Amino acid sequence: MNATLAALTECIAPQMAAVERLFHEELTSDLAPVNTLIKHVSRFRGKMLRPMLVLLSGQAVGKLTDAHVTLATVVEMVHMATLVHDDVLDEAELRRKGATINHLRGNEAAVLLGDYLISHSYHLCSSLDSQLASRTIARTTNRVCEGELLQIDNRNKIDLSEETYLEIITRKTASLCATCCQLGATFAGGSPEQVANLERYGLSLGIAFQIQDDILDIVGDAGMVGKTLGIDVEKGKMTLPMIHFLRTAPAEHRALLRSLLASRDVDKAERIRNLIVPSQSIEYAQDRARQLVDRARTALADLPDTEARRVLDTMAEFVVVRPM
Amino acid sequence: MNATLAALTECIAPQMAAVERLFHEELTSDLAPVNTLIKHVSRFRGKMLRPMLVLLSGQAVGKLTDAHVTLATVVEMVHMATLVHDDVLDEAELRRKGATINHLRGNEAAVLLGDYLISHSYHLCSSLDSQLASRTIARTTNRVCEGELLQIDNRNKIDLSEETYLEIITRKTASLCATCCQLGATFAGGSPEQVANLERYGLSLGIAFQIQDDILDIVGDAGMVGKTLGIDVEKGKMTLPMIHFLRTAPAEHRALLRSLLASRDVDKAERIRNLIVPSQSIEYAQDRARQLVDRARTALADLPDTEARRVLDTMAEFVVVRPM
Repeated sequence: MNATLAALTECIAPQMAAVERLFHEELTSDLAPVNTLIKHVSRFRGKMLRPMLVLLSGQAVGKLTDAHVTLATVVEMVHMATLVHDDVLDEAELRRKGATINHLRGNEAAVLLGDYLISHSYHLCSSLDSQLASRTIARTTNRVCEGELLQIDNRNKIDLSEETYLEIITRKTASLCATCCQLGATFAGGSPEQVANLERYGLSLGIAFQIQDDILDIVGDAGMVGKTLGIDVEKGKMTLPMIHFLRTAPAEHRALLRSLLASRDVDKAERIRNLIVPSQSIEYAQDRARQLVDRARTALADLPDTEARRVLDTMAEFVVVRPM
Repeated sequence: MNATLAALTECIAPQMAAVERLFHEELTSDLAPVNTLIKHVSRFRGKMLRPMLVLLSGQAVGKLTDAHVTLATVVEMVHMATLVHDDVLDEAELRRKGATINHLRGNEAAVLLGDYLISHSYHLCSSLDSQLASRTIARTTNRVCEGELLQIDNRNKIDLSEETYLEIITRKTASLCATCCQLGATFAGGSPEQVANLERYGLSLGIAFQIQDDILDIVGDAGMVGKTLGIDVEKGKMTLPMIHFLRTAPAEHRALLRSLLASRDVDKAERIRNLIVPSQSIEYAQDRARQLVDRARTALADLPDTEARRVLDTMAEFVVVRPM
């Protein structure tokens, strides 16, 4: 899919290349040992989905400027910081898994690398003329943190409601996607309606993306998805298929899932997968993601007919088709 | 001393009270569980040294404004974020100490609380009219992160030079103190010379403060200092007394310190203390701190004769007299 997306995003190719350059430039320190540590960030490189949202949203309503390249770099740094900090493990996990997961120099280095990224993202953002972007980005990271804190607070809560689940993923994942589209459109001089529509697109896309991510954590093929699966179960995170299963499956199946979730079995994730896959719960979650994708695509309806709009439309479609 | 400082800082009492209020107001979330987690931040409350620097620097050269209260709150949030993230332990420490240290919900919660603080600090800062403060704060946090990364890179390096040690503490600790004074003076309309002098004051004060902190980690009384001592040795951090000792003590003493630093003895910190205290190395470090305090006080010489200047002068004196 990376190849497909690369072909699709030809209309923003020069800006994407500029984002790559700016990203590395900004993270370079005058201290050699810092640069050595910073290199470890590269193992977290994402798929640049968020920079694409900034640039395509801008192009969908107007002309891209240097500010777009700055903003696109900022949001990628913010996203990477969350990935790096997600990699910090709590005591329980460390005890279970030993020191093998965090290859680098332990949790402290992961914390500092994340802090370095977030600090540089704000620094870069504050180079723009207006405070608008700084204020919007910081308000969004406030929300992202709240989503993560809410998630931790609901860890191992088997009775998590679908409503709270949606609240968590909206703040944790979708809010940054919405901000990417909003800022991209704003800095290209989009009308208030266009900005609002693209923000809605980003929000729906982000929620759908996280639901799909959660589905893949249960049913995905580790090779295809490109990361370790079963992490949600491992971390005590309740996701939509499990929430639906506990609401609708036959009583003895529900009881089995509850006891599996509470157990410490090594093959816990696999047994949960075998229990849920034959049920209606994966399909239910897929339907929800599909509805959100439709909502995202509808939000594009009033935009001018441009290549950028077509790519945004296709990106939404991709979300539910395969891992991004 | 807190009582003494409170008496001293009467001239900024209303602003300090406003900082307290704004701090809590800004960290309040619309999500109840987030507020519950945020309460844990209170166990990290500092001595408000950095807000004092902002306010006193402003008052030393002009009139305090609402922006000063905002800035003072921002720097305290930044400082608290570093305290919270310093509390994240690496695997080795966790294995040695068990799960007792991090009372909360493990490392992940500490990471998220720190992120929440840093995000809110940037958000609050971006509410000011100009980008100047945002840009300056973010440049400073870049430097703080670099200092911390450099420190981690030099962990367990027994041959750390005094020069690199100073580079680390200048970035990690002193740069934020310097920024407090610089922004405080700038936002009160200080002249470029006044701003530069106060920035120099903050920088020297910050370096002296960290050297004193490092001395206390070796020779201090845990009850007086108000925190666990011997942490630097525990974390493999080389500090000025040890660096000096390895450069000047008799050969067999140097060899003993080296073997103690490399050992895993439980009473390692105490044995190092007993070795270093009778030497000239504590005095050497104290002299260095004293020189920096003198330099800080000299930087105040050309400021108008105000109560705020007198308090800044006394604060510098305090640094080498007792723990702050």
